[in-house]
Amino acid sequence: MSTTLITGIGELTTNVDPGSDDPCGTVLDAAVLIEGERIAWVGPAADAPRADDVIDAAGRAMIPGFVDSHSHLVFGGDRSAEFEARMAGQRYAAGGIRSTVAATRSASDAELRARLRGFVDEMLAQGTTTVEIKSGYGLTVADEERAVRLAAEVTSEVTFLGAHVVPAEYAENADDYVDLVCGPMLAACAPHARWIDVFCETGAFTVAQSRRILDAGVARGLRPRLHASQLGPGEGVRLAVELGAASVDHGTYLTDADVAALAASDTVLTLLPGVEFSTRQPYPDARRLIDAGVTVAIACDTNPGSSFTSSMPFCIAIAVRDMGLTPGEAVHAATAGGARALRRDDIGIIAPGARADLVLLRAPSRVHLAYRPGVPLVQRVWKDGAAVR
Amino acid sequence: MSTTLITGIGELTTNVDPGSDDPCGTVLDAAVLIEGERIAWVGPAADAPRADDVIDAAGRAMIPGFVDSHSHLVFGGDRSAEFEARMAGQRYAAGGIRSTVAATRSASDAELRARLRGFVDEMLAQGTTTVEIKSGYGLTVADEERAVRLAAEVTSEVTFLGAHVVPAEYAENADDYVDLVCGPMLAACAPHARWIDVFCETGAFTVAQSRRILDAGVARGLRPRLHASQLGPGEGVRLAVELGAASVDHGTYLTDADVAALAASDTVLTLLPGVEFSTRQPYPDARRLIDAGVTVAIACDTNPGSSFTSSMPFCIAIAVRDMGLTPGEAVHAATAGGARALRRDDIGIIAPGARADLVLLRAPSRVHLAYRPGVPLVQRVWKDGAAVR
Repeated sequence: MSTTLITGIGELTTNVDPGSDDPCGTVLDAAVLIEGERIAWVGPAADAPRADDVIDAAGRAMIPGFVDSHSHLVFGGDRSAEFEARMAGQRYAAGGIRSTVAATRSASDAELRARLRGFVDEMLAQGTTTVEIKSGYGLTVADEERAVRLAAEVTSEVTFLGAHVVPAEYAENADDYVDLVCGPMLAACAPHARWIDVFCETGAFTVAQSRRILDAGVARGLRPRLHASQLGPGEGVRLAVELGAASVDHGTYLTDADVAALAASDTVLTLLPGVEFSTRQPYPDARRLIDAGVTVAIACDTNPGSSFTSSMPFCIAIAVRDMGLTPGEAVHAATAGGARALRRDDIGIIAPGARADLVLLRAPSRVHLAYRPGVPLVQRVWKDGAAVR
Repeated sequence: MSTTLITGIGELTTNVDPGSDDPCGTVLDAAVLIEGERIAWVGPAADAPRADDVIDAAGRAMIPGFVDSHSHLVFGGDRSAEFEARMAGQRYAAGGIRSTVAATRSASDAELRARLRGFVDEMLAQGTTTVEIKSGYGLTVADEERAVRLAAEVTSEVTFLGAHVVPAEYAENADDYVDLVCGPMLAACAPHARWIDVFCETGAFTVAQSRRILDAGVARGLRPRLHASQLGPGEGVRLAVELGAASVDHGTYLTDADVAALAASDTVLTLLPGVEFSTRQPYPDARRLIDAGVTVAIACDTNPGSSFTSSMPFCIAIAVRDMGLTPGEAVHAATAGGARALRRDDIGIIAPGARADLVLLRAPSRVHLAYRPGVPLVQRVWKDGAAVR
């Protein structure tokens, strides 16, 4: 297998042996050896082995490719008018999802596929080398099956979210919709998915409904994750912990009991800064989570309603400015944190044996991702060892 | 002269005849004809004239190139450590400028030039086709002269800001420094500059000192602009209005009297959203300004201390989310507003006779600049009629 050495890396974020002083396992003046799809060696540039090809990073910073563990990329239409109305003072409500459901159902496979691939390319250009993709805008057996099938064409991290919102046609009998989700819809979707998820929130699904759906998914071999406490406090976080969910996502409104439960568990709390930004909700205090010992991830939640960003650097900048993370903690959360939220140990780190998913920044330090908000700082991206940008 | 027609523009922001319902002078299904460096024709695509070359915008949105009317791009070093400390709780103070002064003085011409050109290229890639550049990190006759001379290599909008901060060597006798600024430093810098500016703020220059400096600049043929009310309320805004300054910049803390004075004047209030973002200061209420009839601009204030973004789209997103502008008002402020702040009528609009400075977005509407924060949405850029990206 041919080898490539990237040397002259001014600041390397490995995420190996993170400590509170340095959550990023930093190596200065570093080099990384790629062999095929994997990382073969990491260390000081002065000790680097020989390689077939050598790339000089000229002092720039390198980080693991971002692991965006929460997105909704299979949909039709957009909701820019709703966004404008919200910015003019209208409040965000979960029901807006239904307009995207209508647009998604009426889109062709080719339209959805082209859009989906466009988003994945857009993310790759911004340094995201792994993305989790949820269904949830179909809400019929056929439309949900189509969503997970299309998602599986572009990622191995597919989540069945038939329980995104109760569709209009079941508005008066939500439990019948839950029966559908747990029965024929799950049966159709499970073969394409790795995860099952529920939007557990007032206006979406109750705790009891969420438990039924997650239990049904687990019985079909899927692993649980959960949307909770986005619009107000609730019991969703504790349900996620109780069921051993890999991650509970949003956490805009967390009680002390939620934080204690998370800290005593392996469940990751996935912060979605784009949501609070784009819905003008209050930012959760992520400092409190870190200080309590909770593992946090940062993801974009790319979707046309509550967060249409696909920029992990933007989410890092918000997490630092408004959620109390240090730049190092935010970069760790957006890489190793996302990997943990997907229970993956082969991504989110730069270490021998890990996938060679790497991002070279047009900056001397990862701090610039927060220090230079909005600026496209991703210079080069490697995915599975191949330079894709 | 050869002509190029850009047709199939789904939404064209012309900024011609803006009204309160549509601050952007929108034309749907539009076309723009470029002839040499200028725009020759604008109108519905169905009525477009013939041209040598035709480009199909495929329904995407087009806006005028951004006019970034406030930046500090000639400097050495960076202040990422100060940024990290501030994010951990330390307050922003004007004195930090002095550390950049030391790094700038010790940098070679070649280093400063390479950095400067890098920033201009970075901005162009983000859709900024005109940028104003200030001196202010030299603070000696030779170092200020060097800064405006280098800036003049890349823009016609050069601002002499010798009065950025009182340098350490004059800390005990600021008026002697003002004498230097008004005398030999102004004499050396005026030939390279169009504008004169002062940082009128507690910790920088008093109102009396600011008046002396601006008057001296005007007597040398420069036109006045002013930094004011960034760190607290003061008399700077009213001084700017009294002197007929083209713009007064920051306005983080505005009194009712400031707003009334601005509304009755031709002075633009230039919002710098990156500063409040990166210093965690409160955002000014720009809605109040617009409703009072004040002309507002949006600029990045790119500098290593208080705002290291160079992204006009990022600043638009913040202005919409946190300052109360509509997306249309924010795009207008970042284009036509910036042009007004530079007293230019050949940029910031898409109309026959204007410079062909154009940005094609990878989006169907300018609303996406706020709706999709952080995402690089600039697909193509024309500067003086030439496709530069």
